[in-house]
Amino acid sequence: MTDAATTRRYVLSLSCPDRPGIVHAVSGTLAEHGGNITESQQFGDADTGLFFMRVEFEVPAEQDTLEGAFGALGERFAMTWRLDVAGRRMRTVVMVSKAAHCVNDLLVRERAGTLPVDIVAVVGNHPTLRSLAEFYGKPFHHIPVTADTKATAEAKVLDLVDELDAELVVLARYMQILSPEMCGALKGRAINIHHSFLPSFKGARPYFQAHDRGVKLIGATAHYVTADLDEGPIIEQDIERVDHSYTPESLTATGADVERRALARAVRWHAEHRVLLDGHRTIVFK
Amino acid sequence: MTDAATTRRYVLSLSCPDRPGIVHAVSGTLAEHGGNITESQQFGDADTGLFFMRVEFEVPAEQDTLEGAFGALGERFAMTWRLDVAGRRMRTVVMVSKAAHCVNDLLVRERAGTLPVDIVAVVGNHPTLRSLAEFYGKPFHHIPVTADTKATAEAKVLDLVDELDAELVVLARYMQILSPEMCGALKGRAINIHHSFLPSFKGARPYFQAHDRGVKLIGATAHYVTADLDEGPIIEQDIERVDHSYTPESLTATGADVERRALARAVRWHAEHRVLLDGHRTIVFK
Amino acid sequence: MTDAATTRRYVLSLSCPDRPGIVHAVSGTLAEHGGNITESQQFGDADTGLFFMRVEFEVPAEQDTLEGAFGALGERFAMTWRLDVAGRRMRTVVMVSKAAHCVNDLLVRERAGTLPVDIVAVVGNHPTLRSLAEFYGKPFHHIPVTADTKATAEAKVLDLVDELDAELVVLARYMQILSPEMCGALKGRAINIHHSFLPSFKGARPYFQAHDRGVKLIGATAHYVTADLDEGPIIEQDIERVDHSYTPESLTATGADVERRALARAVRWHAEHRVLLDGHRTIVFK
Amino acid sequence: MTDAATTRRYVLSLSCPDRPGIVHAVSGTLAEHGGNITESQQFGDADTGLFFMRVEFEVPAEQDTLEGAFGALGERFAMTWRLDVAGRRMRTVVMVSKAAHCVNDLLVRERAGTLPVDIVAVVGNHPTLRSLAEFYGKPFHHIPVTADTKATAEAKVLDLVDELDAELVVLARYMQILSPEMCGALKGRAINIHHSFLPSFKGARPYFQAHDRGVKLIGATAHYVTADLDEGPIIEQDIERVDHSYTPESLTATGADVERRALARAVRWHAEHRVLLDGHRTIVFK
Repeated sequence: MTDAATTRRYVLSLSCPDRPGIVHAVSGTLAEHGGNITESQQFGDADTGLFFMRVEFEVPAEQDTLEGAFGALGERFAMTWRLDVAGRRMRTVVMVSKAAHCVNDLLVRERAGTLPVDIVAVVGNHPTLRSLAEFYGKPFHHIPVTADTKATAEAKVLDLVDELDAELVVLARYMQILSPEMCGALKGRAINIHHSFLPSFKGARPYFQAHDRGVKLIGATAHYVTADLDEGPIIEQDIERVDHSYTPESLTATGADVERRALARAVRWHAEHRVLLDGHRTIVFK
Repeated sequence: MTDAATTRRYVLSLSCPDRPGIVHAVSGTLAEHGGNITESQQFGDADTGLFFMRVEFEVPAEQDTLEGAFGALGERFAMTWRLDVAGRRMRTVVMVSKAAHCVNDLLVRERAGTLPVDIVAVVGNHPTLRSLAEFYGKPFHHIPVTADTKATAEAKVLDLVDELDAELVVLARYMQILSPEMCGALKGRAINIHHSFLPSFKGARPYFQAHDRGVKLIGATAHYVTADLDEGPIIEQDIERVDHSYTPESLTATGADVERRALARAVRWHAEHRVLLDGHRTIVFK
Repeated sequence: MTDAATTRRYVLSLSCPDRPGIVHAVSGTLAEHGGNITESQQFGDADTGLFFMRVEFEVPAEQDTLEGAFGALGERFAMTWRLDVAGRRMRTVVMVSKAAHCVNDLLVRERAGTLPVDIVAVVGNHPTLRSLAEFYGKPFHHIPVTADTKATAEAKVLDLVDELDAELVVLARYMQILSPEMCGALKGRAINIHHSFLPSFKGARPYFQAHDRGVKLIGATAHYVTADLDEGPIIEQDIERVDHSYTPESLTATGADVERRALARAVRWHAEHRVLLDGHRTIVFK
Repeated sequence: MTDAATTRRYVLSLSCPDRPGIVHAVSGTLAEHGGNITESQQFGDADTGLFFMRVEFEVPAEQDTLEGAFGALGERFAMTWRLDVAGRRMRTVVMVSKAAHCVNDLLVRERAGTLPVDIVAVVGNHPTLRSLAEFYGKPFHHIPVTADTKATAEAKVLDLVDELDAELVVLARYMQILSPEMCGALKGRAINIHHSFLPSFKGARPYFQAHDRGVKLIGATAHYVTADLDEGPIIEQDIERVDHSYTPESLTATGADVERRALARAVRWHAEHRVLLDGHRTIVFK
């Protein structure tokens, strides 16, 4: 090739109606460009008739060239597809209220190099976590929300997301319900952590509900935000064992560990293009 | 003492309104009879104001003598209490339909000596599991249930429970809903295994519900039977990790492992008098 | 038959030196025969330079035809490969001593249809488990072992394995150490369950070792049998939480649950051709 | 009572040779002072003949008065005992090298109020974590260690521990082996986190050992420091599931989560006087 492209690693994720020959066509396109597959997963959903695939590969070709090739393939198979440089850090806005545990966990992991995100802003409806954000070198935006200012506040957040070219918004125990408009604007690129094992204990104060019901495990659920509250596609769930001696307060403290764990995994998998939507369910290629 | 009682190990479980001096009074009664505590747990529920205790002890005294002493104590502190020989195998009736995994697990554990129950009968509304029961030396009673015969069938089961002096009834994937009358008759001594992580997926076909919701963990819940379906006090819950590739069928197969595990623990703890009722919640002294 | 072959589902597993084009060649061979991939996983080990792949696919072609095609491919890429009908039950001999929990679990799963094995014989060095095997319709062979008769006994077992065309031998808490010769004869097709989280507590009486060391979790390890005792490639491990109150006896009882769980998974994955050897490690395509 | 003591909550932990009457004597002493037991656990080790107990109680008495009473009791039963105000934050020095995850976790939990410690200093043999410590308002002491300066450096640390009246030293991935003298000086009050599931993978680079052995779970172990490296009494262990695709690097990243979890629990239980030594094993009253 004339311009001596450096070999880079890319990740391709796609979904399309299932039919024979998809894998062969994709691997053929890669072979044509001298690509070597390093990781590949696929899944055919017999219920929806959809096929899902994620491929990581090394190839001595530019992204533009590949996008041309996959564009043609995408049309042929009616694919929804996305190509990205593997390991590229996804530009992310984190929204918080007063609780530090989730955002702190994301900041620590970003700094440790184990979470491929670039947190470009932390937005709080309270100013509580400003110093934490700033310690990690992140601009903090205090955007208070009241019943009267909700529409304006949400507009400010969306403006910020646009200005910063943010690709992902993480609600890290952000204690406000987003309007249907905002949910729509962030469709497929906003992740929330709900502090229960959904569909148990939807709505407010799940640890109090859990305490009252006397459950023996408590959980947390990371899911995409949708207008239908607590009904968004689930990305990850985790649990911790508890017993009768737990109060709502100690359930809350224990739950904090579960929340940050489930959220961090969901964000990592999303940022690595491992999560694909299959109706109201997710395919997660771990 | 005149007749040289052998030292035996007993277990005392009790609940009463919380107030100072209970532990001292109980340990005093034990000390008077030369008892030595080998295991003891207690819990005060700040919400309900109730105190719960379980004590295992060795003592050179007859059960009658001890019951007299604890009877006096029980009146003084308004206790609900129960004294039993530690390790005594609880007489148990297991109810089944067609699925073998739960009852098989209980039979295997009884035979291995790791579950202190004496399964005195297996009752099936289908004849499917007769040979399994009989292989383990258990009488099998086929009591079919239709809408018309439900009342008669339940009466037969209750008669059997009475005749056999059964202390515990285990619904080991028994696919019939008990009438409120039967629930009442078996209050506090019937354990059901529900094939979901309650309160998620109450009602029918929970694995299909779980599949549709796209959960990432599936669970099972062992609980006391109450007239309020799937709302009985929870004794034990467990989960297993699943992913998008699971069908309702493979969720069911995986769930079978979780069910038998949760049920076996709940039955063991109940038979060892480790489970005490605290309103609609349970105290479990593991 | 000339055309009109029935569509069947097959599984192909392979390993070979890694290089570009393998996936494309495999998917091409499938496409030529009208195959549709339903599940596929692959892994390239950067340390050993080996590539591993497992594909399930539906194809309107006979096994002979496919074997011809993959034979050519195999030569081209220096592959070790195996083609099997998906879901075919693997002919299996289970070896036992006195403990029932592992073999019982395998028998129950086979009967429930959740473990794709056909247990063609149970061999015991004690007669204890004859009735259990026979209840499940399995021939039981009592082959006692003493220091003097060990060589003869092992020869009998190997003869049986040959006569029965057994593909897999499972040591389900078989309390005899196999000779290096026998290990060699069964290389890659014998699975043992060791009752510890290897490499912790190699050798005898691991639960006593675990009790003495005061560990807070106990484990079990399913691994391929090799002449180097307890050093065989690990297929699966699992653990359970314990505490200071556990005696060696109750560790043993709890461990029994872990053992049967880990062993059942390992056997299922092996029987589904999901386990590939990568030196002294395993690739497991779950 | 004349001097109107406020009701406070205390925790008493004790061990002594087992014999009848201990619980009665302890509860009697509490009853005499108007105490009300809110949590109590006990354990008799049949192997060592030792009895262990932990009691939390509310009592309208001063600590001095109680210490007098328990002193008498302690002599009578040859007890090792300790009385503390429940919930008092234990003065703690944390030692670190370059890795932030463990110390960060402790700092976050202290600030959130879920870990009853008062971290009075962070000591690093590298200066890397100074800004993190200072962000949480903690003095950071850079005490480098070389083969030549090791004795001096350890003396400095011990001086600091003394000056600060520190009760606990936590080695939060401190990558230096303490001398036997230092281990002796900190006996029973220094906790280390080892990055493997002990006794697997003692010594250096456990994640590389784990990768080579091909284990399917990786673990971490929090234990008291003793001169016998990696052999100290185990307080807590935890694990995470991994598979063949993990490199030593991704094992390390995953392990970091396990380490901080196990260490945080061990420190909390120690600070709450829930951990008692039973020879080279621990009793943990969770």
